[in-house]
Amino acid sequence: MAELPLILGLVAGVIAAIYAGVLISRINKLPAGNETMQGIASAIQEGAMAYLGRQYRTVAIVGVVVAVVLLVPGFLGVSGFGIWTAIGFIVGGVASAAAGFIGMRISVAANVRTAEAARTGLGHALRVAFQSGTVTGMFVIGLGILSVSVMSFLVFAGIAPFSALVGLGFGGSLISVFARLGGGIFTKAADVGADLVGKVEAGIPEDDPRNPAVIADNVGDNVGDCAGMAADLFETYVVTTVAAMLIGNLAFGDGNIVVSLGFPVIIGVASIIASIIGTLFVKMSQGGTIMGALYKGLWISAIIAIVAFFPICQWMLSDVTVVNTSLAPVGITPLSIWICAVIGVVLTAAMVYITDHYTSSEKKPVESIAEASVSGHGTNVIQGLAVGMEATGLPILVIVIATLASFFLGGIFGIAVAALSMLSMAGIVVAIDSFGPVTDNAGGIAEMSGLPESVRENTDALDAVGNTTKAVTKGYAIASAALAAVVLFADFTHTVTEETGAVFSFDLANPFVLIGLFIGGLLPYLFASRAMTSVGKAAGDVVEEVRRQFKEIPGIMEGTGKPDYAKCVDLVTKAALREMVLPAMIPIGTPILIIVVGFILNAIGYPQAFEFTTLVLGGALVGTIITGLFVAISMTSGGGAWDNAKKLIEEGKYGGKGSFAHQAAVTGDTVGDPYKDTAGPALNSMIKVFNIVALLLVPLLALLA
Amino acid sequence: MAELPLILGLVAGVIAAIYAGVLISRINKLPAGNETMQGIASAIQEGAMAYLGRQYRTVAIVGVVVAVVLLVPGFLGVSGFGIWTAIGFIVGGVASAAAGFIGMRISVAANVRTAEAARTGLGHALRVAFQSGTVTGMFVIGLGILSVSVMSFLVFAGIAPFSALVGLGFGGSLISVFARLGGGIFTKAADVGADLVGKVEAGIPEDDPRNPAVIADNVGDNVGDCAGMAADLFETYVVTTVAAMLIGNLAFGDGNIVVSLGFPVIIGVASIIASIIGTLFVKMSQGGTIMGALYKGLWISAIIAIVAFFPICQWMLSDVTVVNTSLAPVGITPLSIWICAVIGVVLTAAMVYITDHYTSSEKKPVESIAEASVSGHGTNVIQGLAVGMEATGLPILVIVIATLASFFLGGIFGIAVAALSMLSMAGIVVAIDSFGPVTDNAGGIAEMSGLPESVRENTDALDAVGNTTKAVTKGYAIASAALAAVVLFADFTHTVTEETGAVFSFDLANPFVLIGLFIGGLLPYLFASRAMTSVGKAAGDVVEEVRRQFKEIPGIMEGTGKPDYAKCVDLVTKAALREMVLPAMIPIGTPILIIVVGFILNAIGYPQAFEFTTLVLGGALVGTIITGLFVAISMTSGGGAWDNAKKLIEEGKYGGKGSFAHQAAVTGDTVGDPYKDTAGPALNSMIKVFNIVALLLVPLLALLA
Repeated sequence: MAELPLILGLVAGVIAAIYAGVLISRINKLPAGNETMQGIASAIQEGAMAYLGRQYRTVAIVGVVVAVVLLVPGFLGVSGFGIWTAIGFIVGGVASAAAGFIGMRISVAANVRTAEAARTGLGHALRVAFQSGTVTGMFVIGLGILSVSVMSFLVFAGIAPFSALVGLGFGGSLISVFARLGGGIFTKAADVGADLVGKVEAGIPEDDPRNPAVIADNVGDNVGDCAGMAADLFETYVVTTVAAMLIGNLAFGDGNIVVSLGFPVIIGVASIIASIIGTLFVKMSQGGTIMGALYKGLWISAIIAIVAFFPICQWMLSDVTVVNTSLAPVGITPLSIWICAVIGVVLTAAMVYITDHYTSSEKKPVESIAEASVSGHGTNVIQGLAVGMEATGLPILVIVIATLASFFLGGIFGIAVAALSMLSMAGIVVAIDSFGPVTDNAGGIAEMSGLPESVRENTDALDAVGNTTKAVTKGYAIASAALAAVVLFADFTHTVTEETGAVFSFDLANPFVLIGLFIGGLLPYLFASRAMTSVGKAAGDVVEEVRRQFKEIPGIMEGTGKPDYAKCVDLVTKAALREMVLPAMIPIGTPILIIVVGFILNAIGYPQAFEFTTLVLGGALVGTIITGLFVAISMTSGGGAWDNAKKLIEEGKYGGKGSFAHQAAVTGDTVGDPYKDTAGPALNSMIKVFNIVALLLVPLLALLA
Repeated sequence: MAELPLILGLVAGVIAAIYAGVLISRINKLPAGNETMQGIASAIQEGAMAYLGRQYRTVAIVGVVVAVVLLVPGFLGVSGFGIWTAIGFIVGGVASAAAGFIGMRISVAANVRTAEAARTGLGHALRVAFQSGTVTGMFVIGLGILSVSVMSFLVFAGIAPFSALVGLGFGGSLISVFARLGGGIFTKAADVGADLVGKVEAGIPEDDPRNPAVIADNVGDNVGDCAGMAADLFETYVVTTVAAMLIGNLAFGDGNIVVSLGFPVIIGVASIIASIIGTLFVKMSQGGTIMGALYKGLWISAIIAIVAFFPICQWMLSDVTVVNTSLAPVGITPLSIWICAVIGVVLTAAMVYITDHYTSSEKKPVESIAEASVSGHGTNVIQGLAVGMEATGLPILVIVIATLASFFLGGIFGIAVAALSMLSMAGIVVAIDSFGPVTDNAGGIAEMSGLPESVRENTDALDAVGNTTKAVTKGYAIASAALAAVVLFADFTHTVTEETGAVFSFDLANPFVLIGLFIGGLLPYLFASRAMTSVGKAAGDVVEEVRRQFKEIPGIMEGTGKPDYAKCVDLVTKAALREMVLPAMIPIGTPILIIVVGFILNAIGYPQAFEFTTLVLGGALVGTIITGLFVAISMTSGGGAWDNAKKLIEEGKYGGKGSFAHQAAVTGDTVGDPYKDTAGPALNSMIKVFNIVALLLVPLLALLA
């Protein structure tokens, strides 16, 4: 039965949802603490839900406009556009939004229960938080495989064109860039603002209930680190799968559509099962570490997936024939493709190890930042920036090696398989990541409701690990983006040839290509610059509002007056929504602008308008990934390192809490905040949106040919 | 007479030297102040000379090794290597070192005379400082055109091969990367160290004679901003000229060698004359600004050059025939090439304007950093980083437009001419730039020798302008590097074809090319990271030494004990020399490493070893310029903006001197120091070294073919 892989995809999606459902009901049954705790938790919950609702309404407006725009050229007969592309776009957007929503919903239920569980021990708290993370992970990958399988089925049945899948990826990416940006600006504006005025000016500790911005800070953890991250990983999974399907179809031809659509799905099926099994192994062992427990689950999933991929490759790829040798070598075998899949998993492991090295407080890079803090703010920042830049080295080298190795074995298709197998781990990676914001919140709730110090110690231990796992996920996502970009660029060039009949060489010696590289290279800089400024501005608003409340509401500092938490949440919400739109337009607007320039050149009679537009657009696609990769890695690793350098000093080294070195480390951490949680991670989505939009626009190039 | 342009080149070089000689004798005749001033000046002079001597000795060792390495393959019969390449290399190195040495020599003579002149007025001080800058500018461009003309003459006469010119460029670049790095580390380690322990810890003002690091700080201005900058601009001029000669030769063939060698030289001749005339117009007019006086000289030079280029193009290019249409269109005319030259000058103007916008304390970007300082150290740094990233936008756009326009008019040769005409302004640009360190030193001498406050006010006014002109020069150098890189890449690809007979398409769709882009893109990150760490480390050493002196030498703070200045100078000298070697090896080692990998692949029988090596190397060349351009511009503009934001606050805005905002601004300035004066400007040289080394190594690729 040819549709079997796609049906298995649906089944796996449903299994993931059922598993998540079981965990949700378990979490909901747990005790939710005393009244004070529940009061705080519901304030966080309300703020988070209110934000997400408003964010989705804003994005929905953009989405409707885009959907209409996707329809119009279809009516005019331009291929690749039309009703199915729009439907795919809407499905992708809704599924991505749903993954974010459910993930956040469970987070705000689990935070207070984790705080309560932390009363009885570290192991209990870890279990609750990790189960909550697992729910998010399962919905991310479950909704991912469901939507991909359904759309693939429609394509397979000849109902929808291939562009419906591209539309699906676009929908996911668009939500993701907004969620990463909006959530990232929210969380860091609240965090930086609360820290600046609370810790630095008023001298009160983090998560102190006297700080009016404290609820906003906790809301931020959920909307940024949970909902934003879930949407990001959803799109990364979907876009990579779709890119692999396109490459498979181009490499093996329509006669092998069962393989090109089915193979990526079945890889996902195996990984979901592997991820579910892996999550069952995440338990604190006697004398073990939290990180050890999490990694155990990850590696068990990885090994199961690697083993399962072998028969899958045998089953799906034994009879496949290559029709386009520029995308896959004639001699590919199930074994060679299996090795590509193994390379993807090994790359994941390498990225985990490297990111851990650069952001863990026990390693030299973080130590060097802590040491530099002793001479002051300036040297802390200099060293942090240097560590961030250096942290790009090893990831780039392993990405290069992985790309080369999978290319030798399986051509561009091999690179696609490596990216696929890497992303197939997303279920457990998200689970490991999104337990972080839950414990962060749990710590805040414990602090605000005056639970004993031991509770906070337990949540702090979990939170510190959460900092590293968050950095790891970002490194993982951006590394997979590098592989996906290679594949998407191949999709782009081959779609150009298919749609226009013209074969281009995107030769670096051609100035059009070089100009494209420069223009594309610029986008991550403008995007990140804008995201950083937005955080700074919104944080400034928070500082002013908190200062105002301290002045106007009597008795806040003495604990007799109640701060107006909701005002701060509302203020940050508005600021985040206002600031997210412009940068999100950069990756959508730029390819459109390049094509518009092409049409203008064509209209004024420039004979090479088609060549110019295609080469500049292609160059820009690659330029964005080149600079984007470096900027993103240096930001996420540098930010994580700054954060943990501060933690290292707080543990008592280099002068300890309150020392001059600690003040310097707080500055570094503040700089690292928008680096690692706003600009850095949003770049992954930005790169993908740009690629997908360019791919969608290819049929318009045909009008210039 | 076919050699006429080259002879005119010699004459122009001699004229520049004579003009500089006249200025030197004039400066030396000026009063050098009282005994205290002369004592301080001679301490600075000794320190600077001692440093430069030791730097040159270190570099000489590297140089001798490289020269020998350049000889060996020549004996084995590999083309492009051999005695003439080595001679070119030595000439380039010695000339570059001489330009730096003479520039620094006059700076350390003029600083005390500027301080003395500042007693009688701003206009007098400007004249002395600018005359000193002019000496440096004249030697940079004079020695540049002399060495290029002599080597070209040998090539023209058939005595030396073309590779002698490449060797010349390599020699200049190698000295330049060491001078920029060593000088940059020296100046910023001393500056940051002195500030951290003096301003922040001991609470004494800048340039206070009680600070043991104060002489080292003033030495740094000379070895970094003067000698380093001179070497940088020398190599930029020489490499761009050589690149244009190579392209001309490839485009027009050996039959037109008079044009390909003579045209770039004669462009330089016209510019030297234009620059000399321009410098005569730099005078403070009644009620005018310092910046206005400097810019007047620049624009007069530019207009004279543009006018002079017209008959030159008519004379040299009327009868030229194109033999390679991929490098120059068949239809090029003297007029179209003249427009390319005008584009280069317009690009210079645009870069000056844009850099001014991002770094001037009267414009919005600097204002935004100052404003962000009010909320603290963290927000200052966030905003500074954001401004730096944003500041890449307009430069990239104007570079793209200039590249496109000159390509449309004159092909790759047109781009080369635009780069040439841009660089031909180097004489006056260096003059405007290197008056900065002289005034900076003059201020220090005035402060240390207790001259009246009005003297310091005059030198401060000049110094503030120096900050902007320094940023402008760096923006100018890196923009010209972008154009030069396009030309050098064309040189590379065509030399590959010439040497190996193989024609490659450096297609972005080829993973080898993509991998090359990633590897090349990594180099600026590693290089800059290392440079920043070095400054941090060396500054830390200074802090410790100063703290030790404060503790162990009695009466320093009371003014009764004399600090051991020489100890600090010696310490920074050692640190700078130790730290400069490793990063300087990055651009030399990487192309060699890529070729070694190619030979290994070839040895183990990989059939595509030649293709792999060439495409990865080519991709890496372009990758380095892509990320390098962004990193360099964001660092130099961001650093300049941070510096002037501090100055803006010191003028009394946002709380003024000593306020919380001011402390935050000092942090930003400290971060900006290695950004703008160490890592950022050294990237220009690094990119060029990588390109030149790759070009030199091309004949080795032939062994793989």
